[in-house]
Amino acid sequence: MIGVAILGFGTVGSGVYEVLKVNADSIARKTGEEIKVLRVLDLREFPGHEVEEVLTHDFEDILNNDDIKIVAEVMGGVDVAFKFSKAALEKGKSVVTSNKAVVAAKGTELMKIAKENNVNYFIEASCGGTIPIIRPLCTSLTADKIMSIKGILNGTTNFILTKMTEEGKPFDEVLKTAQQLGYAEADPTADVEGHDACRKIAILSSVAYGKTVNFENIYTEGISKITDKDIAYAKKMNSVIKLIGSSENFGDGISARVAPFIFSDRHPLASVNNAFNAIYVEGNMSGCTMYYGAGAGKYPTAAAVCGDIIDAALHLGRNISMDWDLDAEMKVYDINDVAVKGLVRVAYNDENEAKKAVEEFFGINAYINIEGADDEFAFVSADETEGTMKEKMAALSANAAVKEIRNMIRMEG
Amino acid sequence: MIGVAILGFGTVGSGVYEVLKVNADSIARKTGEEIKVLRVLDLREFPGHEVEEVLTHDFEDILNNDDIKIVAEVMGGVDVAFKFSKAALEKGKSVVTSNKAVVAAKGTELMKIAKENNVNYFIEASCGGTIPIIRPLCTSLTADKIMSIKGILNGTTNFILTKMTEEGKPFDEVLKTAQQLGYAEADPTADVEGHDACRKIAILSSVAYGKTVNFENIYTEGISKITDKDIAYAKKMNSVIKLIGSSENFGDGISARVAPFIFSDRHPLASVNNAFNAIYVEGNMSGCTMYYGAGAGKYPTAAAVCGDIIDAALHLGRNISMDWDLDAEMKVYDINDVAVKGLVRVAYNDENEAKKAVEEFFGINAYINIEGADDEFAFVSADETEGTMKEKMAALSANAAVKEIRNMIRMEG
Repeated sequence: MIGVAILGFGTVGSGVYEVLKVNADSIARKTGEEIKVLRVLDLREFPGHEVEEVLTHDFEDILNNDDIKIVAEVMGGVDVAFKFSKAALEKGKSVVTSNKAVVAAKGTELMKIAKENNVNYFIEASCGGTIPIIRPLCTSLTADKIMSIKGILNGTTNFILTKMTEEGKPFDEVLKTAQQLGYAEADPTADVEGHDACRKIAILSSVAYGKTVNFENIYTEGISKITDKDIAYAKKMNSVIKLIGSSENFGDGISARVAPFIFSDRHPLASVNNAFNAIYVEGNMSGCTMYYGAGAGKYPTAAAVCGDIIDAALHLGRNISMDWDLDAEMKVYDINDVAVKGLVRVAYNDENEAKKAVEEFFGINAYINIEGADDEFAFVSADETEGTMKEKMAALSANAAVKEIRNMIRMEG
Repeated sequence: MIGVAILGFGTVGSGVYEVLKVNADSIARKTGEEIKVLRVLDLREFPGHEVEEVLTHDFEDILNNDDIKIVAEVMGGVDVAFKFSKAALEKGKSVVTSNKAVVAAKGTELMKIAKENNVNYFIEASCGGTIPIIRPLCTSLTADKIMSIKGILNGTTNFILTKMTEEGKPFDEVLKTAQQLGYAEADPTADVEGHDACRKIAILSSVAYGKTVNFENIYTEGISKITDKDIAYAKKMNSVIKLIGSSENFGDGISARVAPFIFSDRHPLASVNNAFNAIYVEGNMSGCTMYYGAGAGKYPTAAAVCGDIIDAALHLGRNISMDWDLDAEMKVYDINDVAVKGLVRVAYNDENEAKKAVEEFFGINAYINIEGADDEFAFVSADETEGTMKEKMAALSANAAVKEIRNMIRMEG
């Protein structure tokens, strides 16, 4: 018997409890021993629920129970999660987590502590929910150098963009629907503004490129400025808009950013709809591979956590290190130096003069129009850097013929 | 230094040689030791090529070299590949392979021998080319019971179907193009008739469900009878046709089949085009996940082989078993008992009478028509078994109002 404790009996925590119960037989066959939940930590009571038998409000009950070899931290938040994870690792217990916030902020430190104590800190469920991506990067794509990652890493925003695309409705209305359906939280900021995706692409990039990527260095832009008109332009170009966390490996450093991107219908990421996530990885030998699945949800996330519990059970007392130098920080390029090509929407006072200004500043004289947008046109820029793009957009905005630049949406490829 | 031998210096073998060289630094960092190709076995000469230094025509040179710990079998074929793999395993060398023919026919036996000799027989590259799928099934989706697998497992047929769909051209013409471009072999039977996909779904099903699936028990139908008219019907239904290897887990046995299937445009497998492969897996907890990438090709396949070499290097002298009972054969249901829903194309002598017969035998009175098919209509059947479908089609064919049944294409979902 291998004892497990679950920290937090919310959606994911109760899912972990149920997965370990429902698939107990096959899990025991794979680990060679019964996996048993000995303790569940939560501040709440669950009267009448069988979890009461193992419920505790005191983390010390878990820390001091030597039969507990594996701790599943599914609490969320940074400070307490970090404190508990650190203490468990130092006590010789492996920790598995679905908590991207703590992994992005403190993952390196926790992995070092795990290594020192010859236990493991596994993080598969922190990115892409149920999708196997951390382990394939570490154990399958090992003969490759990873060159780039592009991920649809947030289910809430993908659900919103899918509904905007399918139903032609504006952002605010779809957000409300998403909140009613439980796909978005009451305060949707972390999802909608890209902060969640930012932490995930930081984690994936650290794993893929082998040095710690500080999520605070990643330029992050959400989808709250995406309008139904933007979606209509994308449609006109046989494309869709997706919120993408991406990074690219240049050897001496990486570029990284979170932003809405226009993807051709033909790109594999374009058909990833609703709350699904997918991660598109380019290796220098394998070429492009993609990993798709539920990015959130009780059982999908719990299944990933339990996969890590099983792996931890198979490696008790033996640290499995990733090819991630925990003492090195990855250089993240200044966003102004990163390449970009964008669809720029120009509202005009004088159409001809505005187009002349576009040609003057951007060297472009091809335009896109959509129905119902009578005082504007759009154009696709040449390859720029984020810095030159910003400068040229400022110059264009300052032109008297130009009313405003309504949006600039980055384009894939 | 860990010595490697490569059996076969064809496309994949030379790819393995190059991948190990190009990414030598990162591979050595991951394994902790240099991985060095000490011998390459091929009957041919390669004058002027640096491989000459390690080339041998005699397998004994490899077998008797104690520095060679890992053998990459990338020869193809069954008999010699099996003989060499067996001998290497018995000599205490791990074997990795991209050879689905030998894995489907002899995989169980070779895995047993590997276990007895405390070495490994790794098969990641045998299914889906570069796509990590064997390892995710064994090491990531471990908390799940796998309920079904649906795979686009053959690049040649997917290339042909994609071109037929995009260009509206008939099968024969597209096959010729595929042969000219190197996407199809001179004798395309193994690909086009589904035999290749059959071996791969047998292997994947064995890994996923944990008992050996005999590929000879899998009903297999290729794409040579798919016409441009079939594609047009699919388009009319906002769908595409894909050659799918699929299996479903019923606990006491599985259903399994290889056949062309009609997939809605909205299904993730529908957007897998050209020579790409993808495997769509349903777990009882994780829900649906999909794995996408190059199903063939020199470097992609070689990258998967080298991933296995690295894993073998990390587990020298330690057998890593899958959750696959090597002594148990999986029961595969009689194809006649397997559920099916199909698009049936009916050519008629008398349209009204033929429709009456459809209603009589199938209970269906909704029809689909496409342009340029003046003497036929099609209908979508209710849920049948393959057995009742066959019987009802025979009865319909025998009706005087019916000229012929031109095709029956299975439908997903």
